[in-house]
Amino acid sequence: MHFASDTTAPVHPKVMQALAQANEGYAPSYGTDTLTDEVRDRIRNLFEAPEAAVYLVATGSTANALALATLCPPWGAIFCHRLAHIETDECGAPEFYTGGAKLRLVDGNHAKMTPERLRAAIEDTHTDVHSVQRGAVSITNVTERGTIYTTAELSELTAIARDYGLPVHMDGARFANALAATGATPAEMTWKTGIDVLSFGGTKNGLMGVEAVVHFDPSRARELELRRKRGGHLFSKYRYLSAQMAAYLRDDLWLDNARAANRAGARLSKALSRVPGIELRHPTDANMVFADAPKKLHMRALAAGAQYEVYPDGAPDDAVLPARLVCSWSTTDADIDRFLQALSD
Amino acid sequence: MHFASDTTAPVHPKVMQALAQANEGYAPSYGTDTLTDEVRDRIRNLFEAPEAAVYLVATGSTANALALATLCPPWGAIFCHRLAHIETDECGAPEFYTGGAKLRLVDGNHAKMTPERLRAAIEDTHTDVHSVQRGAVSITNVTERGTIYTTAELSELTAIARDYGLPVHMDGARFANALAATGATPAEMTWKTGIDVLSFGGTKNGLMGVEAVVHFDPSRARELELRRKRGGHLFSKYRYLSAQMAAYLRDDLWLDNARAANRAGARLSKALSRVPGIELRHPTDANMVFADAPKKLHMRALAAGAQYEVYPDGAPDDAVLPARLVCSWSTTDADIDRFLQALSD
Amino acid sequence: MHFASDTTAPVHPKVMQALAQANEGYAPSYGTDTLTDEVRDRIRNLFEAPEAAVYLVATGSTANALALATLCPPWGAIFCHRLAHIETDECGAPEFYTGGAKLRLVDGNHAKMTPERLRAAIEDTHTDVHSVQRGAVSITNVTERGTIYTTAELSELTAIARDYGLPVHMDGARFANALAATGATPAEMTWKTGIDVLSFGGTKNGLMGVEAVVHFDPSRARELELRRKRGGHLFSKYRYLSAQMAAYLRDDLWLDNARAANRAGARLSKALSRVPGIELRHPTDANMVFADAPKKLHMRALAAGAQYEVYPDGAPDDAVLPARLVCSWSTTDADIDRFLQALSD
Amino acid sequence: MHFASDTTAPVHPKVMQALAQANEGYAPSYGTDTLTDEVRDRIRNLFEAPEAAVYLVATGSTANALALATLCPPWGAIFCHRLAHIETDECGAPEFYTGGAKLRLVDGNHAKMTPERLRAAIEDTHTDVHSVQRGAVSITNVTERGTIYTTAELSELTAIARDYGLPVHMDGARFANALAATGATPAEMTWKTGIDVLSFGGTKNGLMGVEAVVHFDPSRARELELRRKRGGHLFSKYRYLSAQMAAYLRDDLWLDNARAANRAGARLSKALSRVPGIELRHPTDANMVFADAPKKLHMRALAAGAQYEVYPDGAPDDAVLPARLVCSWSTTDADIDRFLQALSD
Repeated sequence: MHFASDTTAPVHPKVMQALAQANEGYAPSYGTDTLTDEVRDRIRNLFEAPEAAVYLVATGSTANALALATLCPPWGAIFCHRLAHIETDECGAPEFYTGGAKLRLVDGNHAKMTPERLRAAIEDTHTDVHSVQRGAVSITNVTERGTIYTTAELSELTAIARDYGLPVHMDGARFANALAATGATPAEMTWKTGIDVLSFGGTKNGLMGVEAVVHFDPSRARELELRRKRGGHLFSKYRYLSAQMAAYLRDDLWLDNARAANRAGARLSKALSRVPGIELRHPTDANMVFADAPKKLHMRALAAGAQYEVYPDGAPDDAVLPARLVCSWSTTDADIDRFLQALSD
Repeated sequence: MHFASDTTAPVHPKVMQALAQANEGYAPSYGTDTLTDEVRDRIRNLFEAPEAAVYLVATGSTANALALATLCPPWGAIFCHRLAHIETDECGAPEFYTGGAKLRLVDGNHAKMTPERLRAAIEDTHTDVHSVQRGAVSITNVTERGTIYTTAELSELTAIARDYGLPVHMDGARFANALAATGATPAEMTWKTGIDVLSFGGTKNGLMGVEAVVHFDPSRARELELRRKRGGHLFSKYRYLSAQMAAYLRDDLWLDNARAANRAGARLSKALSRVPGIELRHPTDANMVFADAPKKLHMRALAAGAQYEVYPDGAPDDAVLPARLVCSWSTTDADIDRFLQALSD
Repeated sequence: MHFASDTTAPVHPKVMQALAQANEGYAPSYGTDTLTDEVRDRIRNLFEAPEAAVYLVATGSTANALALATLCPPWGAIFCHRLAHIETDECGAPEFYTGGAKLRLVDGNHAKMTPERLRAAIEDTHTDVHSVQRGAVSITNVTERGTIYTTAELSELTAIARDYGLPVHMDGARFANALAATGATPAEMTWKTGIDVLSFGGTKNGLMGVEAVVHFDPSRARELELRRKRGGHLFSKYRYLSAQMAAYLRDDLWLDNARAANRAGARLSKALSRVPGIELRHPTDANMVFADAPKKLHMRALAAGAQYEVYPDGAPDDAVLPARLVCSWSTTDADIDRFLQALSD
Repeated sequence: MHFASDTTAPVHPKVMQALAQANEGYAPSYGTDTLTDEVRDRIRNLFEAPEAAVYLVATGSTANALALATLCPPWGAIFCHRLAHIETDECGAPEFYTGGAKLRLVDGNHAKMTPERLRAAIEDTHTDVHSVQRGAVSITNVTERGTIYTTAELSELTAIARDYGLPVHMDGARFANALAATGATPAEMTWKTGIDVLSFGGTKNGLMGVEAVVHFDPSRARELELRRKRGGHLFSKYRYLSAQMAAYLRDDLWLDNARAANRAGARLSKALSRVPGIELRHPTDANMVFADAPKKLHMRALAAGAQYEVYPDGAPDDAVLPARLVCSWSTTDADIDRFLQALSD
């Protein structure tokens, strides 16, 4: 009953196997090995972007911060949702890597920026020298509340960015889940929809710790590479990043994992919505379920060993408390059934 | 015949095995798992430093930059050898993480700072408001030229630092090799000798990518933790860092690996010194050999498939060219013999 | 009819005279002259703070950014009103000087933070390592909308800051106006009310370009001095800053100027409130008047040569447009009367 | 006998007069006044550079740091002489403003980089991702030791910079002195010789505190403007900077001042060279004299009230001590004669 995060799950066995295979003999350092070449080509093919710059790093915060630093100057504003990971969960990494840019927070239900509010936030950021300048837009898909922007919705946002000449970043820590849910292709969800650079997540979806920065504007490639090195993120034994990513992309493992997680999310969501007293707070578009439930139910589940985000300490006994439950590639139907059983016991 | 770097070697099988074992089931994220607790305790015991703050990161540049940022303010000077990795090979990571500190370069043969020159460099850095301020001292052991500071030599340098109230960092990317060569204990080589914070390397010595920052001043722990997160270096699936480090420390694997590498270095060094026309440039205190050899010999070795750092392109045929050869835990006697054979063919 | 800003006014004649007097012969550079000593002592006396660190700089943004950088680490959050000058008018200077801190925006009518909202904003900033940390509170008095916090209101805010261990900065670009309006003493408006560091403005109140940073925590003095130098803000011919500040404080010129500006503000405000169709948007607590008026009236005033902040371009003819009018030490009754005449013509 | 620095001298009376004249009535803020327009045009004419971007700031460190930040990225190296002001006297301002660039120090007698050593320093800075990248060259003229690069010497250096595609900054804190000594025109000493951006000093030559950044690459203008604002260096009462600069350029005051200072320097230098026991350490190309003299002589001069840079404390009685003596526009023959008299008493 492990729903705390998709990062508490183990690494997929195929990935472990790929690491073991990559461990044969010597290989050149710092991404000059052939496996890394192969991964780069594979990602370019996958995204139908033969010129894209592709860099592997180990954490999502790194991918986001490096990508944003190539888009936005120190005196720029990054427009993102108030609940974006870059705002709430990275201890100021974007500010650090950009050299002090400002995040301008945009509202919208279910962690999705609305076009109107994005436009208003950009308009509110003046262009005279006294103000920070309009810098970039960052969109998270899957969002931090488990909802998904369709490509049509993304197009609306990127069109606004284009109106103001702003480049667009996508935080795709759960990019695979978004694709699996919508059926869009990687290209459709990114550059065809106006995304300039993608943080392409793997860690939450079965890898040990690999994210790719995919920059569709190759003119920023060198800068990204230098920022990566300078940030301490260029791995000497790079082959072990590439091995993970290669396994991820082979035979659609990445999509299979995401589909499994999404299916588990849907199953859990549906079941919870039928439990008396529980209300879903956001649509379950992917693998995350946000539900409000009476404290009593939470205490029961926790007592049975369930793990998920909820903060009952100090709450009154009759409180209704919000919770986050995340499914992963390794969540089983049995896990979900046990959890539901625990609630009803 | 792979002598390009100790980072081209594979990961030690015991480490791979430990990763596989750590991959059972779910584990809490971000270093809150029990394996991480175990590693922390083990390192504290090893260093006889029950209060030390211990953090795992994935690259040596990160360990160095984070450590230095907790020692030196943006307006400070870090005193290090002209050939230090932090000066030559990190694309300015210390400047980035400190917020713009300056590296003051100290000379000395064989990549070792001399006490006189360290003192002179500190004295030359004035204390009035116009100058950057004296900030910290950084010492690399094993040095970038394969030599080793004894604990007596270190004490001389740290005594000078103490005279000026400066904290001291040790870049121990090859710390195990230094210990294996000198027989000093971890405590003797660090806090007992006046080191405040250590970058404790593993990646060059059989791990996939793990270094520990060991801060003997626990009052800087929280700052280091926040800087790590902000730099994108806090791994969600932290258990896979801890698993590597646990395997490294178990049954003295770390020292065994270092001893093997040092032995190979000594063997290679001794053999090369007997080849007519080859001269060693630095003492071979550990696993790195620096040798000057006629271009002709280099061409022969390279043609035979040997890999190491040498730049023959464009050099005249009768040139004598410097080379760097690095042995690792996986270097075999056969590798060395083949290499010597290639030279003499 | 110059109401565009208090910075469009000339320098007070007594200040010009003081500059001329300071221009006799040679003087030591960088603030080591006797005039600077005198100014420091005078400010310490004025604030009943014999230990305060006092530094002169030339712009308000500088005073704010330096002060905040000594209070808040790069990974900290600065809590301030959404309309604070540090947020809207300094092109990210606080982010630059702190090394990437985040400004958390607090709401409240008339540009004043309410205690409830300040507390909520602090509570919303978590203390785990994923979040930026609670760093400092910054309060502007006189606010950006011309309103004033009483010392009682300030105490409520600083008590909240104290609850969370946060230091407090006051942006006092119009500090003199706040004192003149409330009758509080400098000490009462600052350290006695829990303010740790003050940006003590002069430029908007008759000086050519001098602000003092008054740090009531002298342990941060050296850091501030180094940050100032590093920021390029240590003047070699410092005596000309000190001469201005000395003249400012002599014979209460600073308070007289502020009283004159406040009186003019009150007169203008009262008169405007009686003009049919005009509505005051904020209370006129000091020297700034915020009024909504029909576009027709604005066009009339502008045609007559009045200068103030209003943006009629592109507005429909029947629009009601907000305007900002600022009085200064040099505003005359005649100026105001002409302006009112122009409106009614 | 004030030879401590050219910044201890008073402001030239014509400049004070210009400030008084500029103090009539109201003027728009932030450099939108007509006097500022006039100054911009005047500087463009003077430099025969109708497109040049011209910005006024108050200190030389600011001019240098802002200029360099537009030339060199955070991961770049700035090549400058070991004794350059940007290295020794700005508390790391270039590092701060660039976001952590590294200064690579070049040697050469009399504070002048030699072409060979500049080229070697650039060559030593590698272009792979591990190294900081070649960023920019900074040349000081007049140098920190009072010597001057001729335009021919400058051309040699800038040709090397051009070979590597590096932009060139000139620290012209004493630019007027360099022109006065060589007879070169402003254009000849700058863009015609390959300088991309100039810190055009005024403060050391009779102004209260004004330097112009003259950017011959107007494409960097907007960035410079934003960096200036963000650094706190955009003055609201900008007219008082412009008034100084206007007076400076009117009727060649700037050149007259520099000529007077140079003449005094030559006179002092010549006289000192004849004093038995005194040796000049550097050629006196402009207004600064560097002389080694017996402690006894120094003590005599200091006792008579002379002020200049020398550190006799703790030196043995028979020591020969280096000294720096700086003449300014206000140095008189009588000052020099008194000083020489004091030495011989």
